[in-house]
Amino acid sequence: MDREKRIIDRYFKPLAKNKESLNLDNDAAFFRDKKLVISTDMMIEDQHFKKDHAPELIAKKLLRINLSDLAAMGATPYGFFLNIALPKKIIHQWLTEFVKGLKTDMSLFNLKLFGGDLSNSSKIFLNATILGKTIKKTYNKNVATENSSIYVSGKIGDAALGFQIKNKFPYIDINISNDERDYLMNKFMLPQPRIKTGKNLNGLVDFCTDISDGLFRELFMITHQSNLQANIFLEKIPISNVIKRLINTDKTNSKKMWEMILTGGEDYELLFGIKNKKLNSLKNVKNISNIGYFSKGKGVKIFNKDGRLINLKKIGFSHF
Amino acid sequence: MDREKRIIDRYFKPLAKNKESLNLDNDAAFFRDKKLVISTDMMIEDQHFKKDHAPELIAKKLLRINLSDLAAMGATPYGFFLNIALPKKIIHQWLTEFVKGLKTDMSLFNLKLFGGDLSNSSKIFLNATILGKTIKKTYNKNVATENSSIYVSGKIGDAALGFQIKNKFPYIDINISNDERDYLMNKFMLPQPRIKTGKNLNGLVDFCTDISDGLFRELFMITHQSNLQANIFLEKIPISNVIKRLINTDKTNSKKMWEMILTGGEDYELLFGIKNKKLNSLKNVKNISNIGYFSKGKGVKIFNKDGRLINLKKIGFSHF
Repeated sequence: MDREKRIIDRYFKPLAKNKESLNLDNDAAFFRDKKLVISTDMMIEDQHFKKDHAPELIAKKLLRINLSDLAAMGATPYGFFLNIALPKKIIHQWLTEFVKGLKTDMSLFNLKLFGGDLSNSSKIFLNATILGKTIKKTYNKNVATENSSIYVSGKIGDAALGFQIKNKFPYIDINISNDERDYLMNKFMLPQPRIKTGKNLNGLVDFCTDISDGLFRELFMITHQSNLQANIFLEKIPISNVIKRLINTDKTNSKKMWEMILTGGEDYELLFGIKNKKLNSLKNVKNISNIGYFSKGKGVKIFNKDGRLINLKKIGFSHF
Repeated sequence: MDREKRIIDRYFKPLAKNKESLNLDNDAAFFRDKKLVISTDMMIEDQHFKKDHAPELIAKKLLRINLSDLAAMGATPYGFFLNIALPKKIIHQWLTEFVKGLKTDMSLFNLKLFGGDLSNSSKIFLNATILGKTIKKTYNKNVATENSSIYVSGKIGDAALGFQIKNKFPYIDINISNDERDYLMNKFMLPQPRIKTGKNLNGLVDFCTDISDGLFRELFMITHQSNLQANIFLEKIPISNVIKRLINTDKTNSKKMWEMILTGGEDYELLFGIKNKKLNSLKNVKNISNIGYFSKGKGVKIFNKDGRLINLKKIGFSHF
């Protein structure tokens, strides 16, 4: 189990023994009577972005990472509260661009601004608390069932690669075109919250979460909470053409890319589990891929195209 | 108008043209159908507290400044979301004490923890978004009526003096006993949200707000929004015995103290306006004081015990 999860389990779960919190295992809280879903996420300078990143894009991303939590709950966007702490000297120029980004995405996602708080701070600190509405019942907890299928939306890994390019990590010495660079950076800076997909899945699936913290980590949490094993087929994980090409360049690149796909995070795609008898209902849901299934056992097992178990530690994946 | 208000008016009011936001003029947002009141406030290292302040007290204060917003809306505490960003190296020791404080006040104020977000940060950043329930209709906007009376709860100025003592400002070279010191520090560190008073006022008053940003500023906002003049009698402002004594020490101290009482903030007492025909309903509300009334005109006018207008600028109050 990773550090954030351990901290939450140790310090905060004992405080959150109420139905609405969904045991802190979900992307949001749920208010049954009111059919309201509420979630909150932070973005902090030097943790999630650099001071010189465009405020317009930061505003959009702040809304979108929160919208992604609503998507995972199958909810319709309603509105948000905004907390902003900024250094005094940058305030007007920064806010002008930031508000431009808010305005565009508030209109795009039909969001209202309800209130917030404003303060000074030596570093930029941002937080949004988002409210969504749901008509159907939502998932009580992120628990999978045996033999059910595992799906993801979209393509996995692009955002993590975009993040590395944006931050000029020496790790990435790959040959990509300007178009590919723009595509990857955009996947990192402007995630697409899967609102429509989430609403389609509401009532059908066992669990649904976004993959903000990496596919492997999210799957591991689910297996832990469900007391099951996740079996994932590397070949079935949906990846973009640029990542396909990079995987095929050479062995070193291939390993780097797969590690990034499995652990990179930042994708804001949906990961969900569905009972096989309900698979028929998915036929009209677009842009989703079956990547494996749950079975008795523990942890996350990854298989190659020949169906052989990959020993992730042995081949040097540092995250495992 | 002060800086924060100007920034909100310029950047955020144009984005918040929805009923629930109450035009961003209130302490919280209000969801009519659901009878939910929601508010959010931040506490940031070096802005609102120092790194060496006790985490247990910081936790309580974070909840209490948010509870004070619920009090101003006449709502009953329900639960909250919590965002915490902390330096990695202090995380366990700090959280252990912080959670202790949360637990005590969650029990005292009957609050549930619904969820939140956790991150790393070089400085401590805290935010709570609090939910309250209300059965009566709440105030739509902070607007006063002509000839109505102005009231505050509790004593004003203690918290601001406590803040100055806590931060060892050279400004304060006053002679106080250890008991007085403890009393004042406690007023700053552990504000008492006026939940019960707020509920008693719900449905009776024209407006109600907490005095977190100072009596003068809050009154000025109301006069601005109401297009009225506030007339305040210095003698009627409720102050503690220690501040009374310090005022009487000498002329320099007296001026410092009054400036602090009028502009210091941090009190988290309630400020409200009530029509004279409703004054009878206040007779069972404890710990409140009438300090003046609204009339035609503009701004906040302060009168001395002889009924003469005080020229605040002339006597050197730097905040006016």
